[in-house]
Amino acid sequence: MNAKDKILEDAAAGRLGFAEAVAKLAASAGAVGELAEARIDHARRERCGFPEFVYGAGKSLDQLLAIVPEILGRTGSVLVTRIPAEYGAALLEAFPAGEHDPLARTFRVRGPHKTAGRVLIVTAGSSDAGVAREALHTLEACGVGGELLNDVGVAGIERLFASLDKLRAADVCIVVAGMEGALPSVVGGLVRCPVVAVPTSVGYGAAFGGVAALLGMLNCCASGVTVVNIDNGFGAACAAARMIKHIR
Amino acid sequence: MNAKDKILEDAAAGRLGFAEAVAKLAASAGAVGELAEARIDHARRERCGFPEFVYGAGKSLDQLLAIVPEILGRTGSVLVTRIPAEYGAALLEAFPAGEHDPLARTFRVRGPHKTAGRVLIVTAGSSDAGVAREALHTLEACGVGGELLNDVGVAGIERLFASLDKLRAADVCIVVAGMEGALPSVVGGLVRCPVVAVPTSVGYGAAFGGVAALLGMLNCCASGVTVVNIDNGFGAACAAARMIKHIR
Amino acid sequence: MNAKDKILEDAAAGRLGFAEAVAKLAASAGAVGELAEARIDHARRERCGFPEFVYGAGKSLDQLLAIVPEILGRTGSVLVTRIPAEYGAALLEAFPAGEHDPLARTFRVRGPHKTAGRVLIVTAGSSDAGVAREALHTLEACGVGGELLNDVGVAGIERLFASLDKLRAADVCIVVAGMEGALPSVVGGLVRCPVVAVPTSVGYGAAFGGVAALLGMLNCCASGVTVVNIDNGFGAACAAARMIKHIR
Amino acid sequence: MNAKDKILEDAAAGRLGFAEAVAKLAASAGAVGELAEARIDHARRERCGFPEFVYGAGKSLDQLLAIVPEILGRTGSVLVTRIPAEYGAALLEAFPAGEHDPLARTFRVRGPHKTAGRVLIVTAGSSDAGVAREALHTLEACGVGGELLNDVGVAGIERLFASLDKLRAADVCIVVAGMEGALPSVVGGLVRCPVVAVPTSVGYGAAFGGVAALLGMLNCCASGVTVVNIDNGFGAACAAARMIKHIR
Amino acid sequence: MNAKDKILEDAAAGRLGFAEAVAKLAASAGAVGELAEARIDHARRERCGFPEFVYGAGKSLDQLLAIVPEILGRTGSVLVTRIPAEYGAALLEAFPAGEHDPLARTFRVRGPHKTAGRVLIVTAGSSDAGVAREALHTLEACGVGGELLNDVGVAGIERLFASLDKLRAADVCIVVAGMEGALPSVVGGLVRCPVVAVPTSVGYGAAFGGVAALLGMLNCCASGVTVVNIDNGFGAACAAARMIKHIR
Amino acid sequence: MNAKDKILEDAAAGRLGFAEAVAKLAASAGAVGELAEARIDHARRERCGFPEFVYGAGKSLDQLLAIVPEILGRTGSVLVTRIPAEYGAALLEAFPAGEHDPLARTFRVRGPHKTAGRVLIVTAGSSDAGVAREALHTLEACGVGGELLNDVGVAGIERLFASLDKLRAADVCIVVAGMEGALPSVVGGLVRCPVVAVPTSVGYGAAFGGVAALLGMLNCCASGVTVVNIDNGFGAACAAARMIKHIR
Amino acid sequence: MNAKDKILEDAAAGRLGFAEAVAKLAASAGAVGELAEARIDHARRERCGFPEFVYGAGKSLDQLLAIVPEILGRTGSVLVTRIPAEYGAALLEAFPAGEHDPLARTFRVRGPHKTAGRVLIVTAGSSDAGVAREALHTLEACGVGGELLNDVGVAGIERLFASLDKLRAADVCIVVAGMEGALPSVVGGLVRCPVVAVPTSVGYGAAFGGVAALLGMLNCCASGVTVVNIDNGFGAACAAARMIKHIR
Amino acid sequence: MNAKDKILEDAAAGRLGFAEAVAKLAASAGAVGELAEARIDHARRERCGFPEFVYGAGKSLDQLLAIVPEILGRTGSVLVTRIPAEYGAALLEAFPAGEHDPLARTFRVRGPHKTAGRVLIVTAGSSDAGVAREALHTLEACGVGGELLNDVGVAGIERLFASLDKLRAADVCIVVAGMEGALPSVVGGLVRCPVVAVPTSVGYGAAFGGVAALLGMLNCCASGVTVVNIDNGFGAACAAARMIKHIR
Repeated sequence: MNAKDKILEDAAAGRLGFAEAVAKLAASAGAVGELAEARIDHARRERCGFPEFVYGAGKSLDQLLAIVPEILGRTGSVLVTRIPAEYGAALLEAFPAGEHDPLARTFRVRGPHKTAGRVLIVTAGSSDAGVAREALHTLEACGVGGELLNDVGVAGIERLFASLDKLRAADVCIVVAGMEGALPSVVGGLVRCPVVAVPTSVGYGAAFGGVAALLGMLNCCASGVTVVNIDNGFGAACAAARMIKHIR
Repeated sequence: MNAKDKILEDAAAGRLGFAEAVAKLAASAGAVGELAEARIDHARRERCGFPEFVYGAGKSLDQLLAIVPEILGRTGSVLVTRIPAEYGAALLEAFPAGEHDPLARTFRVRGPHKTAGRVLIVTAGSSDAGVAREALHTLEACGVGGELLNDVGVAGIERLFASLDKLRAADVCIVVAGMEGALPSVVGGLVRCPVVAVPTSVGYGAAFGGVAALLGMLNCCASGVTVVNIDNGFGAACAAARMIKHIR
Repeated sequence: MNAKDKILEDAAAGRLGFAEAVAKLAASAGAVGELAEARIDHARRERCGFPEFVYGAGKSLDQLLAIVPEILGRTGSVLVTRIPAEYGAALLEAFPAGEHDPLARTFRVRGPHKTAGRVLIVTAGSSDAGVAREALHTLEACGVGGELLNDVGVAGIERLFASLDKLRAADVCIVVAGMEGALPSVVGGLVRCPVVAVPTSVGYGAAFGGVAALLGMLNCCASGVTVVNIDNGFGAACAAARMIKHIR
Repeated sequence: MNAKDKILEDAAAGRLGFAEAVAKLAASAGAVGELAEARIDHARRERCGFPEFVYGAGKSLDQLLAIVPEILGRTGSVLVTRIPAEYGAALLEAFPAGEHDPLARTFRVRGPHKTAGRVLIVTAGSSDAGVAREALHTLEACGVGGELLNDVGVAGIERLFASLDKLRAADVCIVVAGMEGALPSVVGGLVRCPVVAVPTSVGYGAAFGGVAALLGMLNCCASGVTVVNIDNGFGAACAAARMIKHIR
Repeated sequence: MNAKDKILEDAAAGRLGFAEAVAKLAASAGAVGELAEARIDHARRERCGFPEFVYGAGKSLDQLLAIVPEILGRTGSVLVTRIPAEYGAALLEAFPAGEHDPLARTFRVRGPHKTAGRVLIVTAGSSDAGVAREALHTLEACGVGGELLNDVGVAGIERLFASLDKLRAADVCIVVAGMEGALPSVVGGLVRCPVVAVPTSVGYGAAFGGVAALLGMLNCCASGVTVVNIDNGFGAACAAARMIKHIR
Repeated sequence: MNAKDKILEDAAAGRLGFAEAVAKLAASAGAVGELAEARIDHARRERCGFPEFVYGAGKSLDQLLAIVPEILGRTGSVLVTRIPAEYGAALLEAFPAGEHDPLARTFRVRGPHKTAGRVLIVTAGSSDAGVAREALHTLEACGVGGELLNDVGVAGIERLFASLDKLRAADVCIVVAGMEGALPSVVGGLVRCPVVAVPTSVGYGAAFGGVAALLGMLNCCASGVTVVNIDNGFGAACAAARMIKHIR
Repeated sequence: MNAKDKILEDAAAGRLGFAEAVAKLAASAGAVGELAEARIDHARRERCGFPEFVYGAGKSLDQLLAIVPEILGRTGSVLVTRIPAEYGAALLEAFPAGEHDPLARTFRVRGPHKTAGRVLIVTAGSSDAGVAREALHTLEACGVGGELLNDVGVAGIERLFASLDKLRAADVCIVVAGMEGALPSVVGGLVRCPVVAVPTSVGYGAAFGGVAALLGMLNCCASGVTVVNIDNGFGAACAAARMIKHIR
Repeated sequence: MNAKDKILEDAAAGRLGFAEAVAKLAASAGAVGELAEARIDHARRERCGFPEFVYGAGKSLDQLLAIVPEILGRTGSVLVTRIPAEYGAALLEAFPAGEHDPLARTFRVRGPHKTAGRVLIVTAGSSDAGVAREALHTLEACGVGGELLNDVGVAGIERLFASLDKLRAADVCIVVAGMEGALPSVVGGLVRCPVVAVPTSVGYGAAFGGVAALLGMLNCCASGVTVVNIDNGFGAACAAARMIKHIR
């Protein structure tokens, strides 16, 4: 009789309460990769539709060198976000099949994924490029197709109109903007598809590191635009992936 | 030769620049319902997939009595949100086919729509019911199917687990929570579908009228959760409608 | 074979994954009192050491009239916090054994509990009395002994020194203060026992509804003082109850 | 020898220092209308190009009944802003030639002014009408011509394009918007004239009473847009009057 | 038949809707300079009265080396703002006719412009000089005449009175101040001309990087003062240019 | 042997530690007036130079009816601040020798005090009158001479210069201003005496209930200006009383 | 007759008032270690149950080299928190028996303490490790037993359930989390013991350096969770020590 | 006839209005030291009782090398505050009689001043020393006597009581504290003299760079405590100097 059988038998016999049974089932489920300083959630792909990605900020290089192979060994691919520029070389040396994008602050090892769907990543200015590229890498790591449309902010609105076909052909639009964050309001009024707005920390003074854009997007007068954290291209891409992979 | 032909001819002949041509096309397009104090955007359904809804806050009863028939006459249905409780009787008298939901602060006249898709509206506590009901009305007005799952906040987490089947069967989850806004983080880690988080102004003191929940949701550790404005059940429903109607 | 046995058998046989088994166990656990608009967490007393209390703010009188008997029937007592003053009479009529404290904004039906331990609730000024009384009711509802020490703020510090014996005899001190919230810093430097600080919204201008006191308490220079939400006498009492009942 | 000559003589003779001479000159200048509780700045028209207007908020009706005739007697006209609705009748009774606009919260007695220039007041939504009307009254009181263009927010951008001729014909555009405040960014990119942006407190939740719109406008990506306080239609109109009357 | 004719013909024949016609017209208008990572808005001079200026913050040197010649080739001049000090040498090498002002953080290549009008840039303290110089460069790049009046803050108010003639001779005053930002209130009460206030990040502690000055200026008790973003000398100059060039 | 002697004897004999001795001394000191819900600090006059005043906000009428005679009996006078308007009649009935000033929100019973010193209370506008009057009552209750100088805000700066003699003759200036709070900066640059700045909640929008004025005053460019809480005329007067009575 | 006797005699004889007696007793108590720039509170252990610990931030190395031996000489152990990494070597050289933990930013010299109780330090992610380790060192320095449970955040909730036994066996849980800070809400609903929540500055954008987590924890829907300052592992440990040592 | 005579004659003859006369008087007054980039307010000592001090932050070394001798030449002494550490050597070389205090960030050249009065500068912790020393230098430069009392924060309150004699002997107390800023509340309740509170940026997390201490001090429950900007030891000293020199 294996551990799980025993738990269930005890629970069935009333020797275990609800919470105890759950706890013991969890402990026996084998879905957690236990490292010295981290627990990898290997069951995330099954539960959420995409694997655990690695948030690199605040982690030591040693931690990453332990976590990356744990994931890579299971899935054949990995995405690390928010890494310091100086980790790039060491990660490339340890995982030569990987790619380091300093602008996006990502490290990836690609697997043999196919992509589905078409997500358009629209930026208001060229200073938003890093956030947009983080979104692009994440889409690909989720198996979703992405494309960039750069520098179409509302101060020169004919730039946006000139790309209206592209906007309308997309399954989802991710709209990336700093300063006053007005672009999602205009885009949201022109298209039918879901619009995920990403405020960026581009701007100065009363931009307050992206707060102005964040508030603008939360108060978007175009109905049905949703928002993620400041500079969170990663999160916007995961949201788009949930839409493409679960609904489509 | 009608007005639009004339504009285009002038533009073709170089007698009109880009901006002028656009302006004149817009003026001739007939898509705007001009009232004394408002301009109804009749083309919104075509552009965005749902008609213009009426934001009732700050509008006088007279304004609403002028706006509602302008929309109703075109589409056979209308949804007004954020109306003061005291407008209910007058609106019902003027439009006897309508329904007033004081908890949701909405007034609707339903059309003969069918619904598609399945959106689950999950609340953390029973004080979040008004926001959830605003979302439900909006989904229906968009032609999308909605259902409520009440009072499954994380302090008693087995309430949530007991409804896991419902959560996993949904096309989209709208998760409504006040106080610390932790529910979307747990839900987002358990399902594959898009999760739209709605912070509510439930709570006191350092809840700051929903700011705590809003910040919590923007920093959600479950990947791919998106957020709308505080108490904005309407906006979450429009976002879900974009997903269901454009992607599905 | 009952429902729970079946779940466990299926899980044991591999016909159910981890999350599914958990969900089904939860559904069968019978620990949730399902009402029309609320789910009562009857297992809370077992899990946390105190029963579910009812947060009255934002709830209709009808909701309370449904929730109170559901809890009362199980435990013989109930505590409702943050009720509007105008609910008092209706609740007393429905539950004649109850007590309504308008200053504390509570409604209680007492059970036959004994109390353990000694918690001293200290206030900086007489305007903090409502919050202190909410704490007192909650302590009693948890089966913990409480006592009030009023109006010993630091501007007249000999008032505090004159009560030093009481402070040192307590198991736990709950310190309630508005304005600059300095009292926990002084108390924390004079006693060995746990100190739970409650900022109140007493003050004006740059008190910002309790924010000044909250920040003061979070930055308390006396080591080991912990803090709860603004005006949250209830939460401070529950924290003290955890200490008395679990550790003592 | 009059008072002023005496001061100057004393100063010339070295019997008065700089500050003393200034103080005495000021005291003798006769430009201040001294009432029991207020000092009317009659020289403002000469210095600034428009007379002192009366800020009604926080003033008692008695104060207004004393201040209004002091100004009216000098200039033949008066504008009072931000008055409580309940003052209207009393002011009309006292000054029958006046007009009370409850939506704009103004009371005016018009003089025989001619107007110069053309200022277009553009609103994003019909809820911004009160602020726009305050601006209109102020323009007229300054002797400047004003016109309203209502409800052309960016979510239905063809409404704006349809009015492009009007926008381009204006000497100055005052753009009034709540929620995310995106309209000035689009207008500023389409016209050559000065654009004064007025954030309004329209919106809810993370609109924070106009803060979101204010921050959006301060971070406007269209160059050369300036901003006034939240709901400050009055100030925007005075700014436009400075431009029209001093520069034009 | 060229592309534009074709669009217009199709629209005239009803083969194109409004939005499609606009999009195609925009695409064919040729007013956008498409680079690898940026789109230059060459039509801005015609629409707004001044050309596109380059916001240097967050752009790589490579991006600037691509953007500058694209603009220079069209207009014979260029202004880049907010460049890092270390870009200066490389830009000067690439464009030897240019000038680098490290204090203002600008790089310019001047064209053969004449200037019109007289804008006075007034600073409260010598620490505001960088912002004032950014304004000066921008005015010149817009073809407007500018002059500096330094260090006349209100703590020593006779410094300001001594320059009253200059203030009154200006077409527009740009008033630059940090700390409490009181200078525009005094200047606005002394002159008839438009006053554009620029809060600066000079100050410490509760200056909050310019927030104190910004709030002070937004609440200016002198009527008709408008405000731009913190440290935004550039924006104030563009606003002044709109006034001078469009109205004067 | 009385209680105090006993404590001291025990302490001298080593039977009491430091804290215990202090606590017992405090308890025996008789300086605290113990009421049911309050402790009156009768020793404050000796320690601080003025008696305990009563902060009326948040206190019930019953509490005030108990506290006022406790103080009156000791000192022959009393000052209650921040009372609701509706308490006035009941307090006058109970204490017919008292005075109720609804604008200042104070209730006083005057004693036979003489006053010393000369404090000038300067306001920027007539809306600041209530705060100024609270300061005036407090000065008198402290035995200090006060005088009002109304409505000399900086937008019409000759009003201030005309009163320069008064400003320079004062021992202390209390400067009361809302909106941008610029007046203390100008006054502080013109006089030698201490300047206490009181921000008021006069203003709207980005005045944020007095925050703009508070920040402005904290960043005052005139050296040596100090600040009290928003609308805190009481505190400014106590500060001035400390200066007059302790230093002069 | 020693100094203390003399004070007490004088007080007994009425030659000293209360405050003077207290002051003189304090001065004679000998409980303060007076250094050139610091006063060590040697009586803290007796009053509070743990000795004075040294807050290293903002102190020079020289100050620390003076303070550490003053404490070490009295108690045989010392804990310095928040030291810059570069102080480590110098402290180790001066006190070779010490230990430097750069991740926790602590320096300790351990004494021969035994530990009592069992405190579980739970982290949401591996980036919270430094704060958790500061808590661990502090617990040990207080003579309390601590243990770490890493990386069990709510996005993969089965990681938490798998450790339910450990959670329930603890006397106190310290829960350390950044981002939205949801973990204490879930833990607090699962255990009976006191829960002390520590928000961390892990996260970006709208995490605002730990504010989002702090607000989340203050609004925790699980009753009786208390909170300390952002990143304040030290304070949480002291709070737990008060519970273990005073109550248990 | 000199310039001033001419102005006054013209004004007397009506050829100059009030403002023009003031302006011309100011221009002729000779009280401003005009440098290339700064205007020195030489009349400040006469107006305010102390000379212009130099705010070094944001000024170049060249600016300081021009400003210092301009002041030194007039008064024989100078105080520069907030200088970067690296300016020290250059200033000492240029002005060998000067002193550089890196902790206080000041540079001074002392004159032959005598001091009057006794100001006690009290700090809560040794990390507040730099701010306290800035205050000490400023007092001396104003001709006022100052003394330091270090490290008497409220967590070990007997340290404060032990110094009660010193506190009561002072003319003015400047109380410097970070974290929760509670010290002024306790001191203000123990002394009669004016208390000027200086919040410092000592602390972390929710100290928010001194905001917690600032708010605490503004809400001080001891009456009559005034506050200056965060870390503004300079301003507190100038305030004390106004008290000592004008009142005493």
